[in-house]
Amino acid sequence: MSRPGPLSGFPELLPEQRLVEQHVVDRLRRTFELHGFAGVETRAVEPLDQLLRKGETSNEVYVLRRLQAAEGESDAGMGLHFDLTVPFARYVVEHAGKLEFPFRRYQIQKAWRGERPQEGRYREFTQADIDVVNKDELPFHFDVEIARVMAEGIASLGDLLPPMRLRVNNRRLIEGFYRGIGAPDPARVITIIDKLDKLPAQTVAAMLVDEGGLTDEQAGQCLRLAEIDGGDASGGSAFAERVHALGVSDPLLEQGIEELSSVVEGCASVNGERFAVVASLGLARGLDYYTGTVFEIYMEGFENLKSVGGGGRYDSLASDGKSSYPGVGISFGVSRTLLPLIGRGLISGSRSVPSAVLVALADEASRPSCDEIAQRLRRNGVPAEVAATPQRFGKQIRYAERRGIPFVWFPGDDADQVDQVKDIRSGDQVDADASTWMPPEDDLWPRVIT
Amino acid sequence: MSRPGPLSGFPELLPEQRLVEQHVVDRLRRTFELHGFAGVETRAVEPLDQLLRKGETSNEVYVLRRLQAAEGESDAGMGLHFDLTVPFARYVVEHAGKLEFPFRRYQIQKAWRGERPQEGRYREFTQADIDVVNKDELPFHFDVEIARVMAEGIASLGDLLPPMRLRVNNRRLIEGFYRGIGAPDPARVITIIDKLDKLPAQTVAAMLVDEGGLTDEQAGQCLRLAEIDGGDASGGSAFAERVHALGVSDPLLEQGIEELSSVVEGCASVNGERFAVVASLGLARGLDYYTGTVFEIYMEGFENLKSVGGGGRYDSLASDGKSSYPGVGISFGVSRTLLPLIGRGLISGSRSVPSAVLVALADEASRPSCDEIAQRLRRNGVPAEVAATPQRFGKQIRYAERRGIPFVWFPGDDADQVDQVKDIRSGDQVDADASTWMPPEDDLWPRVIT
Repeated sequence: MSRPGPLSGFPELLPEQRLVEQHVVDRLRRTFELHGFAGVETRAVEPLDQLLRKGETSNEVYVLRRLQAAEGESDAGMGLHFDLTVPFARYVVEHAGKLEFPFRRYQIQKAWRGERPQEGRYREFTQADIDVVNKDELPFHFDVEIARVMAEGIASLGDLLPPMRLRVNNRRLIEGFYRGIGAPDPARVITIIDKLDKLPAQTVAAMLVDEGGLTDEQAGQCLRLAEIDGGDASGGSAFAERVHALGVSDPLLEQGIEELSSVVEGCASVNGERFAVVASLGLARGLDYYTGTVFEIYMEGFENLKSVGGGGRYDSLASDGKSSYPGVGISFGVSRTLLPLIGRGLISGSRSVPSAVLVALADEASRPSCDEIAQRLRRNGVPAEVAATPQRFGKQIRYAERRGIPFVWFPGDDADQVDQVKDIRSGDQVDADASTWMPPEDDLWPRVIT
Repeated sequence: MSRPGPLSGFPELLPEQRLVEQHVVDRLRRTFELHGFAGVETRAVEPLDQLLRKGETSNEVYVLRRLQAAEGESDAGMGLHFDLTVPFARYVVEHAGKLEFPFRRYQIQKAWRGERPQEGRYREFTQADIDVVNKDELPFHFDVEIARVMAEGIASLGDLLPPMRLRVNNRRLIEGFYRGIGAPDPARVITIIDKLDKLPAQTVAAMLVDEGGLTDEQAGQCLRLAEIDGGDASGGSAFAERVHALGVSDPLLEQGIEELSSVVEGCASVNGERFAVVASLGLARGLDYYTGTVFEIYMEGFENLKSVGGGGRYDSLASDGKSSYPGVGISFGVSRTLLPLIGRGLISGSRSVPSAVLVALADEASRPSCDEIAQRLRRNGVPAEVAATPQRFGKQIRYAERRGIPFVWFPGDDADQVDQVKDIRSGDQVDADASTWMPPEDDLWPRVIT
């Protein structure tokens, strides 16, 4: 084969980069499981009618066709899923009789979109989703729980990522506010306000007047609401006072304020220097299936990516005609968050192989005894490999160095002489017994370094 | 939406079933990493020319098309990969300049084939592959290593699976033998012998004469070779004597015998009651890219599935014109092995949620203190959830029961009264402190039960 090249939008990672992704996925999974979320995977494909039913991305679906399909046999009627929410909603309805509700699940899988690739936008990407779904009605406290679990998941990644924010808003709050100021079509206002992250405020104000049917004053009120952000010094649920200061009153607005306060306050204990959950009243979230709480995740210094995750409460995404299955969830864009960091070299694995130890090989005849040494190390949970060929020891050390393997093991050459292990970074070499020796904890497995 | 149905060939698992798959994948991964294999994922798609280059399955490829592709814009020229070997060979050549050789990698991913679904044959399935690839030349001892690592991986699954066998043969051995008896076209004989698992021996013998150009006597010799199986009482490398007893001699045959003996003996320490690596001289393995060692994995009692995995040595699968990248690998069919067991109810998770503890909720006002109890449990690594609604405690216990959660936690109702935890299986209820209490190790996380 001639040397193959990359496919635009289908990123691939080298081993030391994949390690970062695996580490992040493992950490998230642990947090989700500690909170009782069950892991689920859905098939990669959905019938086209499912994929086209909702959502903003219908035109970016990849459709499947069997290469050797008979003449006249059309597309298989299936496409690759473009997110994990639509398949999950289908999964819940399909398997409802066999699931226990409320149903908490996490799902970490790839999704595909045929859109134009750019940094942070890929045609194949990994997402980590959590959702809680119930039958008929889902108590509001699950909105708080979902926010807290994802907040803890992201916070558990600590220093690996730039400072992160989980921005929260509430559709009821903004819809109530728009109703309270007398907007003729509050839903239309939401759609226009959603453009604030792409267009200047003045342009959005003009649209609110021209297309939203608002007066200049009403448009101004909408923009002032959108400016309220708990990321400011005020923080916490101080946003409520600022909303009230705008002098608008409406029962739906009050319910929204109360819900949003509950979410923000419920997450307060997770907030720290590098992570915060903040009320962010300019957040509208394009998808039309959200009915209450909405979320977006932002990464500081990477504002060009817009959000790297998001979600919200959806009361009617899934229904089988008889029952409805309201839910609330958040999706964390694993590829979207990590690939820009990896691509810029800001984050990587500490070595390209799992091995903490390379067992040096004096000659091919010693291979069985070297294998036995490696086995003893592995039995204690120490990842190890035996040198591929009996090169000079200097070469074998360089072999380890190139892979980032911190220790080289030198077997004693007969019954008299004991084994020795060398830390090739410091050069320290000491006697050691493969049945009991352990590297420092930090060296046992590859780490993620920034 | 009306209730959606399953898609034939695209199996989905319930949470307690997915747990089995996740457990198996975790175990395999740990074994692979302890042996220094780096985890890699390749994109799900390959250019069609890559997919059609080699392999037996070209007619079962799913091709992608963007739903909103412009008129005249044809297929994206890409298809979903049908195994992990072809993409890995491409990955090695594409990234060769950034990889360290010999390169050990494991890859656990889904693959897709548009073939007719049946038990053990799916259109979407998960495989766990290990391979070692080197530049220009790959020493034979890696064949032994690959066999041993996969053997240990499968053996680590212990009682979860039916007794498993890793059957091994060697292309050089059989080709040398066919040459030694004077077969005019040894490669043709291999292709015919490969049908032994589908056709009666007599039919194959007739084909050897009619299509392979052998005499009846030569055909008989071929069948006698194919009958030699270390799974018989003889075991180990006793097969070599039985081959020699057939009285055929050829240098390639001798090299093959030696290689096969090395693999079988190199794995002897892993053999046990429920797992064995056996020389199996009837194994031919259809794919034409294997050049030496060949493997297949069999599951006792599920002979209808044929092999649930396989692999071998490939000396010329990957090349960029200048360098070639010989490799050896084995693929374990995760779906192929597990789904028949899961489908028949032979294996399942011990509960449908990760939670070991359900914290009972007296009333909504107590939710914050119940959340705090759950957090304390989680900080000690105990998965926990809080009851969804303050039902009667009897109902909350049944809520736990239905999910298989073994413990229900009753918060003390004021400062005087301490918390208690109830094992709902035995009914035992004792005082407990959420900051220190731990369940028995077996109850901490869901287990796989058979």
